[in-house]
Order: sequence, then structure tokens, then C-alpha cells
Amino acid sequence: MYKLLTRVQSPADLRSMSMTELDALSREIRTFLIENIPKTGGHFASNLGVVELTIALHRVFSVPEDKLIWDVGHQSYVHKLLTGRREQFSSLRQFGGLSGFPKSAESKYDCADTGHSSTAISTALGFAAARDLCKQTGESVAVVGDAAFAGGLSMEALNHIAHCKHKVIIVLNDNQMSIGQVVGGFSQYLNKIRTRSSYYTVKRETSDLLHKIPLLGKPTVHVIKKIKRILRYCVTPGVVFEKLGCRYLGPVDGHNIRQLCDTLAEARRLPQSVLIHVLTKKGKGFSPAEETPAEYHAVAPAGKKTESCSARFGKTILSLAETHRNLVAISPSMPDASGLGPFMEKYPSRFYDTGIAEAHAATFSAGLARGGLLPVLTVYSSFLQRAYDSLVHDIALPKLHVVLAVDRAGLVGSDGETHQGIFDLSYLTHIPNMAVLAPSDLLTLEEMLRYAVEIHSGPIAVRYPRGSMPPLDAPPFVFGKAAVLREGTNITLAAVGRMVHTALAAADILMEKGISAEVIDLRTVKPLDMETVRTSVQKTGRLLTLEDNTKIGGIGEQIAAALSGTGYPVLVRAFPDTFVQQGTVDELMTLYQMDAAGLTADAERMVKA
Amino acid sequence: MYKLLTRVQSPADLRSMSMTELDALSREIRTFLIENIPKTGGHFASNLGVVELTIALHRVFSVPEDKLIWDVGHQSYVHKLLTGRREQFSSLRQFGGLSGFPKSAESKYDCADTGHSSTAISTALGFAAARDLCKQTGESVAVVGDAAFAGGLSMEALNHIAHCKHKVIIVLNDNQMSIGQVVGGFSQYLNKIRTRSSYYTVKRETSDLLHKIPLLGKPTVHVIKKIKRILRYCVTPGVVFEKLGCRYLGPVDGHNIRQLCDTLAEARRLPQSVLIHVLTKKGKGFSPAEETPAEYHAVAPAGKKTESCSARFGKTILSLAETHRNLVAISPSMPDASGLGPFMEKYPSRFYDTGIAEAHAATFSAGLARGGLLPVLTVYSSFLQRAYDSLVHDIALPKLHVVLAVDRAGLVGSDGETHQGIFDLSYLTHIPNMAVLAPSDLLTLEEMLRYAVEIHSGPIAVRYPRGSMPPLDAPPFVFGKAAVLREGTNITLAAVGRMVHTALAAADILMEKGISAEVIDLRTVKPLDMETVRTSVQKTGRLLTLEDNTKIGGIGEQIAAALSGTGYPVLVRAFPDTFVQQGTVDELMTLYQMDAAGLTADAERMVKA
Repeated sequence: MYKLLTRVQSPADLRSMSMTELDALSREIRTFLIENIPKTGGHFASNLGVVELTIALHRVFSVPEDKLIWDVGHQSYVHKLLTGRREQFSSLRQFGGLSGFPKSAESKYDCADTGHSSTAISTALGFAAARDLCKQTGESVAVVGDAAFAGGLSMEALNHIAHCKHKVIIVLNDNQMSIGQVVGGFSQYLNKIRTRSSYYTVKRETSDLLHKIPLLGKPTVHVIKKIKRILRYCVTPGVVFEKLGCRYLGPVDGHNIRQLCDTLAEARRLPQSVLIHVLTKKGKGFSPAEETPAEYHAVAPAGKKTESCSARFGKTILSLAETHRNLVAISPSMPDASGLGPFMEKYPSRFYDTGIAEAHAATFSAGLARGGLLPVLTVYSSFLQRAYDSLVHDIALPKLHVVLAVDRAGLVGSDGETHQGIFDLSYLTHIPNMAVLAPSDLLTLEEMLRYAVEIHSGPIAVRYPRGSMPPLDAPPFVFGKAAVLREGTNITLAAVGRMVHTALAAADILMEKGISAEVIDLRTVKPLDMETVRTSVQKTGRLLTLEDNTKIGGIGEQIAAALSGTGYPVLVRAFPDTFVQQGTVDELMTLYQMDAAGLTADAERMVKA
Repeated sequence: MYKLLTRVQSPADLRSMSMTELDALSREIRTFLIENIPKTGGHFASNLGVVELTIALHRVFSVPEDKLIWDVGHQSYVHKLLTGRREQFSSLRQFGGLSGFPKSAESKYDCADTGHSSTAISTALGFAAARDLCKQTGESVAVVGDAAFAGGLSMEALNHIAHCKHKVIIVLNDNQMSIGQVVGGFSQYLNKIRTRSSYYTVKRETSDLLHKIPLLGKPTVHVIKKIKRILRYCVTPGVVFEKLGCRYLGPVDGHNIRQLCDTLAEARRLPQSVLIHVLTKKGKGFSPAEETPAEYHAVAPAGKKTESCSARFGKTILSLAETHRNLVAISPSMPDASGLGPFMEKYPSRFYDTGIAEAHAATFSAGLARGGLLPVLTVYSSFLQRAYDSLVHDIALPKLHVVLAVDRAGLVGSDGETHQGIFDLSYLTHIPNMAVLAPSDLLTLEEMLRYAVEIHSGPIAVRYPRGSMPPLDAPPFVFGKAAVLREGTNITLAAVGRMVHTALAAADILMEKGISAEVIDLRTVKPLDMETVRTSVQKTGRLLTLEDNTKIGGIGEQIAAALSGTGYPVLVRAFPDTFVQQGTVDELMTLYQMDAAGLTADAERMVKA
């Protein structure tokens, strides 16, 4: 079935194929992706868009001698197929299986680990500088989508490239679409390039005309008009890049392997850094994905449909916006996945998509707040890491009332190390003036958002997980107060957010074993309600804390420190000091003994000690 | 003496002055700055460079109705002089005195608090969006230096401006110089604009020529040549900005008040976002500062000259570079102040100044490490906050051997809230795979750097304070080991870095009071040497930890958590959960009872309890 694909054991095999065979190979790869990705779930449209580009890259460059860096990296499936990993595709994004992103530990063909946006050009420049200093050879190639290209980190790297003389090849994969819509000046500029005559055509016209003038002998108003037209065109399509010191080639049809190979080979021949502008279509070759690529950004295996935290967030903010006319919502390129679709539709003028620019989104929110608005900024936990200093410097220091909706906090599962939101409790709680809330069900999420918008003043973060949370029978949320969800006498289990359910499940099991556990839902993780915790521990004599965050700097350590000197034993359960791999949330919780069974065993040990 | 300056009680007074008077005023202001800044210390050359610009801004715009945001903000002295703060200048940068940066709490004329680079455009856009949504009026003006302009956050904001229709005025203060030298493509591009004929001249020439052609009647090769020349020029100076959707005005002489006022007024009239390119000269009007502005970036009141930590860092790296030929050094725009001057001079090809681009500097370092080099990246503690995600995602996750030299850790003093390095222990220690060292004297700093370069593998940070540290009689550094510097029996004082000296001083006082304190220099703060701490506490029965970092997520809490359940009382001394104001290090340590007296009182209370 995959006659040509099975022949590709390593990228070198591409070099013995004819163009016709490569075209056929691209069709086989598309079929493979359409057949296989839905089985495991994964990024769909972006990979369908880079089939020809990946083939051309591996035909022109010799990886791993040449370095090929995929920005973000969710578009690396074709690359994985062509570098000996076809047979592992059934394990894609599964526990212990093939990563959905490039991983240097997985293959010598993956020279960098990516996941977050806009890192590839910086990395490529690092490789290039090292190559030149060590007097080695090989090209350093960064493949960057147009949305990631406009991120601040890409711009910083591009700026640096012009300054140092290390050759880097940047392949700008312009698919006219980030996960949602691409935002900003760069996008508009790229669009202008796309919609005008090609570079070559304009150049030819200009030169033709210049040759004609002396022959005409009688220049007229017509000639002047023509010259004026040229003057408009004389700016080459890539002038912005050329002005910034990078040679520009393109735009190139990203689905024409021959044209791609020619242009890549030209880039290889050039002595200086070069940017190749490649036009691709997300979802290419699969019509539903071509038509609505955002829906096919990633596909998930069929599963139950319950209301997600993101959806409840979106619904709550929509309702709050009705009465709070100064409420505005901000998302760095993730409005739909963050649940803001309905808000955008109803209040387009009160919604801002900043593009993939988390730091700007945060500092911009600070400006909105200073201007008298009430900004609700929603960012995924792992991406908010990008805005850490903007939170500190621009929001927290001046105590601005900005509501941070920290989505995808805790484990996200199959996206793996780069996407797990396991640091936010550590990096948020140590920021002065910042309040941090963690709901354990949808209703509490809603209450917390209402509190954050309507009552709180100053910066406040509400962190909630990917997916949903089942309802809890719990008292109303009160800021600064933890809630005792179950009373007990032998041990206190104090948990954060989603982990409250695990604590309750463990309490059930412990009950059967004759151990009475008190369960506290911490809720306000900053400022911590130490009074409730202390009162409980004075009764039970021991404490087990549970949070889906890294241990160092997390809530458990803060509680344990606050109880130091009391002599009560405290066990802090959190992720150990390591990055957490891909897998389902359940698999990973079991791996770290942070499931009900693990917690039960811990509690038993503590009670028996 | 300051005849005109004393007449300016508020910016409105500028509007009744003639141009001749404004010119005279600018001379008075220069005299004032030259006379006063050296008394208190402060930023010198940058303020001398913006005298006319500030006058023009306040003449054309009505602050505070119009919003005026100073990027970085160390160039806001003239603005402070013109907004009623002249008489407070003797308290500049002193404890309780006038801040060296804009502070909204200080004056209604300061609409944003700045300190870190590249935040102004994002903030200005936020103000503009709020203004338009609330149907208010007023301009939103960001004044940004050329170096800050090239930072990623500025680029993200610029990109967003083109997308949303809120008018922002960006004043690009092109002084051809950041603190050191400006780096990168943007800088080269701006230089090209500066050195070519003005925009207006080129436009006139073009149009003249087009009129001439039909009259000439006999177009010749000469005409073609001329057209070709025009074709080169037809790109307006600001084409990059215009292509990115921002109207460009300039370049304008930044020391000509009339020209500045005309251009700012034009910007005010325009309906869309506009960038005004202003050329200024750092140190203008004070010849030593004009000639070597880097030396006059900031001046400090005369004081003792001892070898600084930065200098010892530079010396050590220089010496290591001799034998480690793969060692390279990276600095985001602070090479001299970081002690890398001699390294740059001796190994220019092994040194990289990335411009003000901390995130890129970190991700670029990751690329260098992947390419086989040994990068030593030096960044100030508070600026490294900008690179938090790059540390997590690009350096720590792949366990790359990158040495982070974290300078200005702990209190920096007179630069105040935005520059205090009091979060790094919290944001670094929770990053998996990251080792963190804190030397307590110059010799240990050197040993730690040698260890980090020669023996360690993986990411490692060495954090050290601004200024110097006196020598200690201490055993050699061993990774993972704390050092007991003084034995005692009543209490353990465990301190980090510079605070070890405070702990020793407290131990001396305690001794006189009959209390025997054991003093531990923690040294390796990650991984913590809990064995040494535990052994000591088992002997003394109580522990007092001391660190120049915020309390939450810091070392003390981690130690206290590790000792939980033991019953030993632990007191964690660190900065409370607040931003720390300006003042001398001694003043601030006293304020937070983190000096020897405070520590002594704590220890006495604990021993007597």
C-alpha cells in the first residue's frame, strides 16, 4: 500500500527518487496521515500542509549533518515518517510512545526539542555560530510558521542574525493561519506579498521597461505612469527582511516539490543568511481540513463530551461581560480553545487576539487596566511562562486589576513535557501582590471568576485544568478560605484543584481501611488559608498535601514550612523535580503515585508511623 | 540661576514660552542635570540626550490627559523636572526619595511604572485601546530608545498595533547607543536611514525627474542610470515600519525643539498610528559624556573601589577561556557592566552581544551548547526574568550544559523595585535539571565558576550580588556541600551568598550575649545539602535561615519543608511578599530586619523560647 514510503528508511533514500516518485510519495504520506492520525489523535492540518516541504528539505539537506529545526514542532510528523519512525506511529503521543514533537532523545534526526513557539531561529543561529567557530560545515535550517515568526523571540533572533555573520536558512512556512487567525502587521505584510505579482515578474517588467525607454525615443505621459507603477513595485516582496539584513527568496509554492528543491538549493548556495518564503495550505489534500483548518488543528480520538473548564470559563466571562461593560478579554492566539469563541462573537470590539505573543498580551493587559478597563487574560499555564516578567514587572508591581485565567494547568497529557502546566503554582505564588485560586469543579471555577472580576482588586490568577472536572458537593467559595469537604480524625488531606477529587477517592478507600481522613480543598492557594489547615492538623495530627504542580516552590512546601516547628508530620505530594513525559493524565498520576492508590498508601504509612 | 526652569511649575507653563525661551530652558536643564546628578548618582548621558525631546513632548501633548510612557524610564529625569519634582532632586534614588524611574504612585504625570526594557509600546497600545473603547480622547505616546525598540516585546506590540485600529504614537529615540553598542538588523537599518539623504529630499528628486522626462525628449542612458538610482531610493526611509502598518515620520533632529514640535504636532494630527524617528545624542551638551556615553550611562557618587563580583566573574571566565577553547560568552547588551570587557577584547569571535533580548540570549545559548560549545550566559537577576521560559524549555528540558552567571542577585539598591534581584532563587530552583550555586566571597565565586565550566554537566546557575563581597576564611567549594563556617551549639544560622556575612556578624554579637551560633554557608542552594543542615540542627535544636530573596519558594521554605515533622523550630528570614523599594543595601536590610541586629534579635527570641 505504501510502496514508496516503505522504501524510505532514511532521508538519503529520497535522493535516489525521481520527481514523479516524490510526487507519488507525497500522496502516500497524505494517505498515511489521514489514515493514522485520527487513531491516536494529534496535529493534523499542519502536517498535511508540510508534506512536500518536508520531502524537499530532506532531499536538499543532509540531516543530521545539516541541522533541521522545527519551530513549535507539531508539524514534524512527516519528518518523523521520513526518518525511520513510521512503524512507531501507532504509539504517537501515547505513554512511552513516539512524541508529537521533535525530541533529540528520540532520534539523531531531531537536533532540537521544541514545543513552544518561536524558538527555532535562536536555536538555528546558535548551531550556526558553533559551526563557524569550530570551523565545521553544514547548514542550519529553521522551519517557522508565519504565526510563530511574528513572536518576539523570533524577531530578537532575526535582529541578531543581521549583526553576526553566521549563515542561517529560515524557511518561513506561510500557511496564512496559526491555530486561529494570524494577527498583526507581519501577517498583513505577508499577505500583501502573496497577493501581488511574483518577485520575478516585477523584476522582469522593470528591466524591460528600462530597456525600452531609449528605443521609444519619445517618452510620454504614458511612460511616466508606467514608471510610477514600477516605483510602487520596486520594493521587492521581501524588502522588510532584506532591510533587516536577511536575503529573501520567494514566495514559493509550498506544494511544488521541484520548485521547493530549486529554491532550497539556491539558499544552500548563497553565502549569507536567507529567508525562504514558502506558501502552504493547512490541511492540504484533505478537503474538510482545508476548509476549516482550525477545527482540524489537532484531532482527538472520539471520547465523551462533557463541559470543559475552558467552556465554563468562556460562558462565565460572557455573562460577566453583560453587566461589566469595562470587561475585555485577551488571548494570545488561542481564543477558541480557551473558550472565548462566544465572547468574540458577541463582543468583537472587546476582544483582543495578540497573536502568539504572551509577554505582549500581559503587558498590553496592564495598559488596558491602566486605561480603566478590566482585562481578563487567558493563557495556557505552560505558555504563560513566556510572560513571567511581564506579570512581575507590568501587572503585579503596580497592583493592576488583571484577571489571569490560567488554562491547561497541571497535566495536559499527550502533548508531553513542553505542555504540562506543572510550574505555575511555583512561578505565580512567589510574585508579590498576586492572588492565586484553584477551583476543584466547574461551579467553583465560575464563583472564582466572578469573585476575581467583581470583588477583587489587584492581580489575580485562576488556574484550572485541561478538560473537565466532576461536580462536588461543596460550600460556596469565599476568598482566602479553604473548604473542609469531609471531616476526619486520623489524617488531613489538603489538595489543590483537580487533585481534590483524588483526595476524596483516597478518603473513601481509607475509610474502608478504618482510617478517617479529613479532606480540605485549599481553593485560595495564595494567600493560603493556614488557619483552616492548622486547625485540621491539630485535630488529626498529620498532613498530606497534594497538588498537580512541581514540588519545589509549590503549595505543599509552603504549608510544610508554615507548620515547621510544630512537630506534625507533613508529606508533600507533588511532581518530583523532573519534567513530566507524555501519557494520559491517569497514567502519569499513577506513575508518580499521585493517584488515589498512591495517596492511600502514603496516608496509611503516615498513620501507622 | 534657573530663571526659566523655576517658572515651570507644570508642563502647561511650557506652552506660554517662546521658542527662544525654550532653547534657553534646555540649556538651564542641562546645567541642572550636570550639576545635580553627580551628587546623588543616576543616569546621566540618556537624560542629557532627551532634554529638547522632553520639552517638545510636553509642549505638544497635555500630560496627564495624553499618556506619555517612557520605555525603561531611566531617561525620565527631564520629565520629572518639568512636572513639579525639581525640588526633590536631591533625594533622587535615595531611600524614601525620588525614584530614578517613572512611578505612578509618585506623580499623576507618570502614567506607567517602567524599569525593564521594551514594555512601553504594549502599555501605550493598552491605553489606546481603553481610550477608544470608552470613547475618550487623548494621545497615547511611547518614547522608546532604539535598543529597547529591537527587543522582542516591542516587536510583538508593533505587530499587534498594525492589526488593531487604535492610534498610538511611538517616538523612536534613536541615540545610536544602548548602554553599550546597539546590536542587530534594526540598528543597521536605522543607521542606513540616518546616513542617507532625508526623506523629503529623495521625494522631491524623484518627482523632479519624472517631470523632466517628457521635456527632455531624448531619453538616454544617462536617464536610465538616474531612474535606476531613484529605484534604489524610492524606498522611503521608514519602509520597514510602513510595511508593518505604522506611518513613519522622520528622521528628525532631536535637539531642535521647533522641528520636534512640528513633527509631534503632525503626528498628533494624523489619524493612524505613527512612528517618529528622532535622532539624539547621548550625553549631549557635556563633552566627556558625548565622547564616551557608555562610561557616563550612569554616574555614581564617589566611593571605595574594590574588586566587584562582576570583575571577578570576567577575570575567571577569561582565564577559563584559555584552556577551554569551546567556551563562549553571551551578554544581552550588558557586556562591560557584567565584567566581560577583557573577554570581548581578547576573544571577540567567542563573544556574543545579543542586544536587549534576554529570551533570545538564553535560547541562542541553548543552540550554541547543542552545537558543541560551552556557553556562559551572564544576565542580571531581574532581567533574567525575561528568559524564564527559555531557561525551562530550551536549556533545562534538554539538560544542556549552559552556565548562567546571574549578576545583581539580591538587592541592587538605588534602582529600586524593578531592579532588585529578589526572585531568582524562587524561579530558578523549581526548574528541573537546574543546579544553583551562591558564593559568599570572590574566591568561592571563582571556584564555583570553575566547577560550573569544568566539571558540571547540564544547566547550572551561579548567582552573585552587585558590588563586592569581603573574603571569608572558608574551606574549598565542593558541589552539593554546604560549609560549616563556625561551630556552635545553641542555634544554627544557615545563610545564602552575601547573607553569610550577616550571619557571621550576628554570630559575633550572639557570642557576646552568651549564645553559641553555628553558621552554615549553604553554597549549593540546589541541590540543597540537607545532610549538613540536619546534622547541625540535631545538635543546636533550632534553625534560622537567611537569604536575600523573596520568602515564598525560596531556600528557607524549602529547608523548613524538608525538616517538617522533626519539631525543630525553623525561622525563615527572607524578603516578605512585597516589592522592595530603593535605598542602600544597608538601609533596606535594616528595614526588613535582615541585618545583623535583626538576626541577633530573632536568634535570641528563638533560643529563649
